[in-house]
Amino acid sequence: MPSADGTLPLLSRIDRTAEWMRGTGPLADIVLTCRVRLARNLAGCCFPPRCDDETLIAIAERAAAVHSCSRALAPFEFVRMQELTELERYALVDRYLCSREHVAQPVGRALVLDRSGSLSVMINEEDHFRIQALYSGLQLETAYRVCAGLEEVLESALGFAFSEKWGYLTACPTNVGTGLRASAMIHLPGLTETGRLDEVLTAAANAGLAVRGLYGEGTEAHGSLHQFSNQVTLGRSEEELVAELSSSCKQIAAAERDARAALHRKSPLLLDDHVARAYATLRYARSVTSREALDCLSWLRWGAEIDLARGLDRQTLNELIIWIRPGVQQVLHTRRLPAEERDVLRASLLRKRFEQVELSEKLSS
Amino acid sequence: MPSADGTLPLLSRIDRTAEWMRGTGPLADIVLTCRVRLARNLAGCCFPPRCDDETLIAIAERAAAVHSCSRALAPFEFVRMQELTELERYALVDRYLCSREHVAQPVGRALVLDRSGSLSVMINEEDHFRIQALYSGLQLETAYRVCAGLEEVLESALGFAFSEKWGYLTACPTNVGTGLRASAMIHLPGLTETGRLDEVLTAAANAGLAVRGLYGEGTEAHGSLHQFSNQVTLGRSEEELVAELSSSCKQIAAAERDARAALHRKSPLLLDDHVARAYATLRYARSVTSREALDCLSWLRWGAEIDLARGLDRQTLNELIIWIRPGVQQVLHTRRLPAEERDVLRASLLRKRFEQVELSEKLSS
Repeated sequence: MPSADGTLPLLSRIDRTAEWMRGTGPLADIVLTCRVRLARNLAGCCFPPRCDDETLIAIAERAAAVHSCSRALAPFEFVRMQELTELERYALVDRYLCSREHVAQPVGRALVLDRSGSLSVMINEEDHFRIQALYSGLQLETAYRVCAGLEEVLESALGFAFSEKWGYLTACPTNVGTGLRASAMIHLPGLTETGRLDEVLTAAANAGLAVRGLYGEGTEAHGSLHQFSNQVTLGRSEEELVAELSSSCKQIAAAERDARAALHRKSPLLLDDHVARAYATLRYARSVTSREALDCLSWLRWGAEIDLARGLDRQTLNELIIWIRPGVQQVLHTRRLPAEERDVLRASLLRKRFEQVELSEKLSS
Repeated sequence: MPSADGTLPLLSRIDRTAEWMRGTGPLADIVLTCRVRLARNLAGCCFPPRCDDETLIAIAERAAAVHSCSRALAPFEFVRMQELTELERYALVDRYLCSREHVAQPVGRALVLDRSGSLSVMINEEDHFRIQALYSGLQLETAYRVCAGLEEVLESALGFAFSEKWGYLTACPTNVGTGLRASAMIHLPGLTETGRLDEVLTAAANAGLAVRGLYGEGTEAHGSLHQFSNQVTLGRSEEELVAELSSSCKQIAAAERDARAALHRKSPLLLDDHVARAYATLRYARSVTSREALDCLSWLRWGAEIDLARGLDRQTLNELIIWIRPGVQQVLHTRRLPAEERDVLRASLLRKRFEQVELSEKLSS
């Protein structure tokens, strides 16, 4: 239920600005955020997709008991999905703290999360436990270490299904072995604009990476944001998988940097025009879809990195990526909104924010 | 040749703001401009398309002689096309003072024109004489009277080809009889936006009107500007043709007014969004095609009529329709420009102008 001032209780306890939003990590001009997640399951218990509600609830309550006793888990919140409103649940999805699948059926689903918005454990998503850490820029090794620490605490208390032959067992065979999925969200407007994106995506696929859009599996890339992740989970150590992805992401970021420099040299006016139009739209439009907003924010992100806009830092841009989402819009207004109304509210939020932004005199005049 | 300050001599002698641009005529909120032209030919002389250069020159010089002797024609300039640069000639086309066909082959072509940009006589276009008058808003009767006065002066001096059976003879049979073509340029964004445009255009065609785009025959409608003109020239008096077109245009303007009111009632936000985006583009973009500029000016014209923008009057909007054209851009810079460069110069001109314009607080916030 919303409180008197209209905020939803859970969300008011989580930092509005997650750690990853600050944009302070390495390569954060190009790599927005990186994530590691470990899939783990209880030994001797069928996987969530095959559990009845009673079993799911029992599993979640075992986790709740561990949470309440563990000193290591004390800084975390334990949240039963059934205690949240639907709007709150989808707002968590928009903040990458859990998945759409996880919140769709709240019975027996739970979430362990920290206030900073960096760490969470989804309970009874596809696997019993999905431990994940989200950081600014490219710091996959750090994210992995944090997940591994959390995993150790849970494993020592609960025991995870493990086979000598296969490694950690998971509901879907694509996760078996390490249960590790590492990913990075990379902003590639330069490669897109210079027509080199396909070449880079193909090379990434050949190097064993999966490439997805902003909202994960099965989604298109909007705002030139692409998610790169490891395809295989088996036959390599966690450390190797993380190091390989990290190395590929560094190469992609370098290619993006080259493309931006080339375009800036060759057609400064093209970039100026895109940045100026994106600014104009966000500052004046009365109705904006989330897709258009993302495309505009993409140009302004690039523009802001080379000082074409004043009053616009990475943190603001990262926050806006979240705040323009349909789910967050609805939470802010604590009710379901038709798409047209969301577009109007989004435009209003953006106009207000962009009144404080100015195009710099570096733009062609 | 351009003078020291870069202006071209002929254009510096014509008022920068033509009478029709002032936007003071009846219904000028919807009817930008109206025009009447009379096609006339010398008796006993083949039509221009079949004349050799020598004959064309001889005809133009006969007209020059009449111009130099006539007190009625004293306020007019007589201009030989060969004395103008190519850029000057195309700038005259952009100002509706002559046609593309008329300036393409300058030998033996001439123009009589007044400084106000309202009246001109094309010599050796398709016909020997095309007398035309251009006025603000819907004042076809006035335009016709002015043309008829000029025609009388020329006819008494030169004698025109006339048949008792057919009336005035013309190079193309579609003009024979009265030789009169009357037209009005009408701004129909309301009908376009409410989906009622086709219905109105079909009704106009059924009422015997021809419908064209902004640049006349064979052109598409940009910026919701449509030109309506009489189809037949034969079997009716000049006065009847003018009165019928005038009456149809009044009906079309009334339909447009209804459509605007309906849309403004039903979706004020849609209109606000379009007006705000058009303003944002013109104020900030670094490269704008003439087509996009026209579309933006169209929304702002509608917006300005209902006080959604401050600092933007009809005259400015009318002038901009002319000033954004490729030909005028080139004249301003006294050289041929590639399209990309024109788009940049056009954007620069528009940005400068729109710095002085503001969206009003009547827009939804």
